[in-house]
Amino acid sequence: MTGRFTQAASTNTVLLDRFKSCRLQTEKICAPLEVEDYVPQPIPEVSPPKWHLAHSTWFFEQFLLVPFNSDYKVYDQDFAYLFNSYYNNAGDRVLRPNRGLMSRPPVIEVMAYRNYVTNAVLELLEKEERNSQISEIVELGINHEQQHQELLVYDIKYILGNQPTFPKYGDSFGTKAEKTIEEWLEVSEGIKQIGFAGDGFSYDNELGKHRVFLEPYSISKNLVTNAEYIQFIESGGYTNFNLWHSDGWEFINNNDIKAPLYWYKIEGKWHHYTFNGLQAVNENLPVQHVSYYEAFAFAEWKGMRLPTEFEWEVAADQFSWGQLWEWTSSAYLPYPGFQKAPGALGEYNGKFMVNQQVLRGASVATACNHSRKTYRNFFAPPSQWIFSGIRLAK
Amino acid sequence: MTGRFTQAASTNTVLLDRFKSCRLQTEKICAPLEVEDYVPQPIPEVSPPKWHLAHSTWFFEQFLLVPFNSDYKVYDQDFAYLFNSYYNNAGDRVLRPNRGLMSRPPVIEVMAYRNYVTNAVLELLEKEERNSQISEIVELGINHEQQHQELLVYDIKYILGNQPTFPKYGDSFGTKAEKTIEEWLEVSEGIKQIGFAGDGFSYDNELGKHRVFLEPYSISKNLVTNAEYIQFIESGGYTNFNLWHSDGWEFINNNDIKAPLYWYKIEGKWHHYTFNGLQAVNENLPVQHVSYYEAFAFAEWKGMRLPTEFEWEVAADQFSWGQLWEWTSSAYLPYPGFQKAPGALGEYNGKFMVNQQVLRGASVATACNHSRKTYRNFFAPPSQWIFSGIRLAK
Amino acid sequence: MTGRFTQAASTNTVLLDRFKSCRLQTEKICAPLEVEDYVPQPIPEVSPPKWHLAHSTWFFEQFLLVPFNSDYKVYDQDFAYLFNSYYNNAGDRVLRPNRGLMSRPPVIEVMAYRNYVTNAVLELLEKEERNSQISEIVELGINHEQQHQELLVYDIKYILGNQPTFPKYGDSFGTKAEKTIEEWLEVSEGIKQIGFAGDGFSYDNELGKHRVFLEPYSISKNLVTNAEYIQFIESGGYTNFNLWHSDGWEFINNNDIKAPLYWYKIEGKWHHYTFNGLQAVNENLPVQHVSYYEAFAFAEWKGMRLPTEFEWEVAADQFSWGQLWEWTSSAYLPYPGFQKAPGALGEYNGKFMVNQQVLRGASVATACNHSRKTYRNFFAPPSQWIFSGIRLAK
Amino acid sequence: MTGRFTQAASTNTVLLDRFKSCRLQTEKICAPLEVEDYVPQPIPEVSPPKWHLAHSTWFFEQFLLVPFNSDYKVYDQDFAYLFNSYYNNAGDRVLRPNRGLMSRPPVIEVMAYRNYVTNAVLELLEKEERNSQISEIVELGINHEQQHQELLVYDIKYILGNQPTFPKYGDSFGTKAEKTIEEWLEVSEGIKQIGFAGDGFSYDNELGKHRVFLEPYSISKNLVTNAEYIQFIESGGYTNFNLWHSDGWEFINNNDIKAPLYWYKIEGKWHHYTFNGLQAVNENLPVQHVSYYEAFAFAEWKGMRLPTEFEWEVAADQFSWGQLWEWTSSAYLPYPGFQKAPGALGEYNGKFMVNQQVLRGASVATACNHSRKTYRNFFAPPSQWIFSGIRLAK
Repeated sequence: MTGRFTQAASTNTVLLDRFKSCRLQTEKICAPLEVEDYVPQPIPEVSPPKWHLAHSTWFFEQFLLVPFNSDYKVYDQDFAYLFNSYYNNAGDRVLRPNRGLMSRPPVIEVMAYRNYVTNAVLELLEKEERNSQISEIVELGINHEQQHQELLVYDIKYILGNQPTFPKYGDSFGTKAEKTIEEWLEVSEGIKQIGFAGDGFSYDNELGKHRVFLEPYSISKNLVTNAEYIQFIESGGYTNFNLWHSDGWEFINNNDIKAPLYWYKIEGKWHHYTFNGLQAVNENLPVQHVSYYEAFAFAEWKGMRLPTEFEWEVAADQFSWGQLWEWTSSAYLPYPGFQKAPGALGEYNGKFMVNQQVLRGASVATACNHSRKTYRNFFAPPSQWIFSGIRLAK
Repeated sequence: MTGRFTQAASTNTVLLDRFKSCRLQTEKICAPLEVEDYVPQPIPEVSPPKWHLAHSTWFFEQFLLVPFNSDYKVYDQDFAYLFNSYYNNAGDRVLRPNRGLMSRPPVIEVMAYRNYVTNAVLELLEKEERNSQISEIVELGINHEQQHQELLVYDIKYILGNQPTFPKYGDSFGTKAEKTIEEWLEVSEGIKQIGFAGDGFSYDNELGKHRVFLEPYSISKNLVTNAEYIQFIESGGYTNFNLWHSDGWEFINNNDIKAPLYWYKIEGKWHHYTFNGLQAVNENLPVQHVSYYEAFAFAEWKGMRLPTEFEWEVAADQFSWGQLWEWTSSAYLPYPGFQKAPGALGEYNGKFMVNQQVLRGASVATACNHSRKTYRNFFAPPSQWIFSGIRLAK
Repeated sequence: MTGRFTQAASTNTVLLDRFKSCRLQTEKICAPLEVEDYVPQPIPEVSPPKWHLAHSTWFFEQFLLVPFNSDYKVYDQDFAYLFNSYYNNAGDRVLRPNRGLMSRPPVIEVMAYRNYVTNAVLELLEKEERNSQISEIVELGINHEQQHQELLVYDIKYILGNQPTFPKYGDSFGTKAEKTIEEWLEVSEGIKQIGFAGDGFSYDNELGKHRVFLEPYSISKNLVTNAEYIQFIESGGYTNFNLWHSDGWEFINNNDIKAPLYWYKIEGKWHHYTFNGLQAVNENLPVQHVSYYEAFAFAEWKGMRLPTEFEWEVAADQFSWGQLWEWTSSAYLPYPGFQKAPGALGEYNGKFMVNQQVLRGASVATACNHSRKTYRNFFAPPSQWIFSGIRLAK
Repeated sequence: MTGRFTQAASTNTVLLDRFKSCRLQTEKICAPLEVEDYVPQPIPEVSPPKWHLAHSTWFFEQFLLVPFNSDYKVYDQDFAYLFNSYYNNAGDRVLRPNRGLMSRPPVIEVMAYRNYVTNAVLELLEKEERNSQISEIVELGINHEQQHQELLVYDIKYILGNQPTFPKYGDSFGTKAEKTIEEWLEVSEGIKQIGFAGDGFSYDNELGKHRVFLEPYSISKNLVTNAEYIQFIESGGYTNFNLWHSDGWEFINNNDIKAPLYWYKIEGKWHHYTFNGLQAVNENLPVQHVSYYEAFAFAEWKGMRLPTEFEWEVAADQFSWGQLWEWTSSAYLPYPGFQKAPGALGEYNGKFMVNQQVLRGASVATACNHSRKTYRNFFAPPSQWIFSGIRLAK
């Protein structure tokens, strides 16, 4: 049914375990929260944690339980309306900027909904051992929920980071120091294979293995550090329009942006909000919470550039990645032969292929084994609240 | 210290009892809520219940405990910033539209803050038996909290009424049927005394007893009912620009308003959201949740007008009032000789004396004994979420 | 037909002369303009001069020629759509903020339209000597065009004053020095007669002679000067929130207003744009181009207040007025017994009676004999581009 | 000096003639306008014709006359401020949305400015026969002015098309019928050469001849016609969200777009505003004035897609192009090795390389010999007022 999503041939037992641990992981991410923290939606892009919990549940109900289990009794008819995200094919939905108005259902009922659906999926999986369609959708649902786990981390950080009191969340999701010695990887020109092929799960947007021709290039083995980024700031990076896209210059000026998100200069020294509260910026960590515009301007200032997503993918086996998603210079566009799946699942990726920029890699908030070197993440150029960083090319 | 606020010579015991029951009443209003309902701020005018709970507490801390009890230890320094409403003199504050982002402190801590301050006030009252300044401020704080109790009811209704599921709150705050026979009170011309004088609490904006000359007029003894208002709607009231102020016409068209707030036409019949959920409109109840623009247009349609606030006050002893606040045709302006109190409390009323319309009376959500016939309530002309109704004059 | 507009019993010859000179005066005001200056609409409140020229012509066509001359051939059917201002009863119209898009018809054709209508009115007046309905409407049309003459002056100043090159217009419309000695007029309490009665033209909003009771008051014989206003600015008037209405404080901060409109501080000295270009502020002239919010804050700073419109009217014979319109503390509301005229002309005044503040007097841009002491001008509180000034009371 | 702009080795005489005829052509485009038409800026993207006339002149003054002729006397110092477009390096400038406020200088003075600068350039060219830097800049200035000629046509159409009276401009800039038989060109896979190399002028954005690998594809020999597009509309194309990008769906719904720009359905039949006034849509002409979102949705509806800019360039010799600019599926990104020129001219192209889509070809409004198959035009996806059309690929 999903058609355009390839997947692993995992046994049902393995799938069932992965499903269970995925569901638990979402709840674990929320554990340090107060009930009140599940409600606000400070900006349209940041959804209430409560919504993520329910929406990732609704996904299994809507696309798995309703079509494949004729005995299944929907938990609550209203929830389809409340927790649909952007699937026009799946009916009306609460408009995105209004998610933060929904104090009901309360968190405790959302948790009950999660348990109800989790159990129904488990029962279905136990009953229908060899149905490949079902495992396909469970696989997609797990990957979908893992994506929401990562958004949940971003959104929780945004919600807590906008409390005037800078509350602590805990020790999770920290990055570690990058090497401070510059190291460059040289890649020679030629026709390269791009895209996913083979076994295992992948999204439709990375399918269509195809050839691209690359000119020779160098790509850094490290991410840009806070120390380097502070140099950029202190040398006037945010006031020199020559470094910026026209849209980027407008963005930083209209929003009075002078540093990455969560950064504050206190008594001459840079601090930032972290999951451990407000702290002095550690210069050796990779710079985080930069928009595409800032990543681009930084590269200009260095006299370098960001890699294309193809340059990144070709070289990805030769450097380590996974601290932060890395902005590429590639716009998010379909691969040759890309086709949307029919129906609601076809809305998953294709309809976003304009005005977005590709990020590659993974971040400390990405679920284990969720990403791969062909994985195409994407966000709008102004996005700062994501776990994004900078790798340079030349 | 407050200067411009007159007050009753009540004994401390009475005051202490009134203080206690006022504090309890606020909490009682919130009792039917889920924790999550305390958080959202769906529109800037509607504050989170959590905020009302804390702000009415901060008022006692800021204006009573800090200045009058040198031993008092502020509960949390951050709270002055978090829970100041609009008192510029009292320091920086969270901007009004951002109140809904503050998930912290959680409700449970706000309740602890309430208890802490309530106890400190009680102790102070017990200790300082005959300090008239203190009783003045306690009196003002009680009246202030009672005002917030009413706003709390409005805001809770707005928050629940915007849940797609129309949850029930309970049986409180309902109105009863108006008489259906028209009855008019005739008042003859003359110089009339307006404003508050004498014992008991009053706000600075109603002080300055003074004379106004009134031409003869008639004023209705009843509020306009839903039945009458439905006639207005069904006869095209919302599409006939001749009935509306220019600003009112723009308001209903820009916001696509075709009926009072919370009204929905379902299968040809008018329903509205009430604290008991979605219900058919009862035709004998007074129409509620109309803006000043709608009240004015209705009167135009009737070939009548709204009373001035002076006409209302002069006649108020001869009709019953208190189901809903009644829009008057008077703009909210200072009385002759009006002077603001010095300091933060001077910001209570005076700075709102432009672009607002006076309402007189009281509503089913008004605290007992809080209002009086000289009481001047005021809201911006588009306000629909308040408990407002219509009394006609001619 | 107009009903609510009273008028002079002037002979047709006098009326005809007044009509002619009124029409010429409008064109004379525009004489210093370049063709291009007739087109822009920099803000919605400021209409293109071309539009004023055509609209004041359309008024005579629509309300006089079409109903009273059955032989009259409308100049161009499209113009009713193009040049209706706000008369919903007179059909569809170009939305106000889009007037500046209409480069067509060109100025030369608008002038032809003016001549065509002027001649048709003259013919009608010559033919229909004793028709009182006609003279009533001509009288109203003259007064209407005189109002637009004044707006034309405001709007031309705004258009030229927003050219980066500050072009000159000419010597017209300057004010003269106010006396620098404070003089106060004392008025004793009592019932006063307010409103227009008797012969001569008046608007519906000033009719309904009625009684008001006034407490004793003092009113200044002079307008506030630039010198006094500069003191207000230099002593921090624009940064002390205690002086401002809540809406006013928001207005000056959102729009970054720190002085009257057209004022610029250049090398430590205040300058302003005048019809003679950019000039140093003359300290003895009355302060001009202040909003109601600024007038109010200035009075607060002085420890005084603005007069009510009744106080102003009662004392008006005892001081000179006419340099600038004077903000009063009165909101624009109907007089007792106010009734709108039926049809389109009923939209002239009544529908603006909310969210506006009354100004009394006249200005150097007001047509001769257009104003009188009962005349009620009104604008929204933030209006700065009008010829407004400040008279104090206490 | 320009560095990144290649150019033709044309003799000075040829260049001089081309310069003269370019200047004349700009003025010829404006000839049918009324003076008033030169002023409005209906939307920020549409500049006043007066501004184009002056800005294309300023370009020669700023980048040629001032640096290369030490005797040159600037026409007016203010004009650098008034007529700079987006060159931050060239100093402060009037903000783009405020161009329509500038009624001064009048058109006649702008024409004098044009003549003054034209003559000064001609003198310089006659004097400095063999200065390659000068001819480079003149060449760039001509190409720059030709781009503005095309924008001028778009903007004039928008200004006239938004007059309620739909005035005529004249017979220019019409398209001719497309063939109605589908014809497809097959292109086989392989490494292709992309970008400009060799003699003649080109922009920096098309330089950097480089290789891309293309998978096999088919591309239509014709543009989509109005007939086909009407089918798309009538079959519900604008109401089926599956066909649209998420941003595109939001765009058409927020702006209530149901057809190409300038289209009106009158009595069941499609009409559109043309330079000859309002006319019935001719079904055989290529569809015009579609945004990228609409072009994409149309292709989806057809079960096809838009070509990439590379696919377009490789096949361009084998079909005819030049009626309308053709939306490609390529985002506007730098070619490998792209480098901005230093200084103000470096702002010409590079800073727009985000959030824009590439169009290839030329239109009936493009200056003769201005375009070429490697030419990369670009606009934001919502742009409808440009002369854009659709070529399909599969």
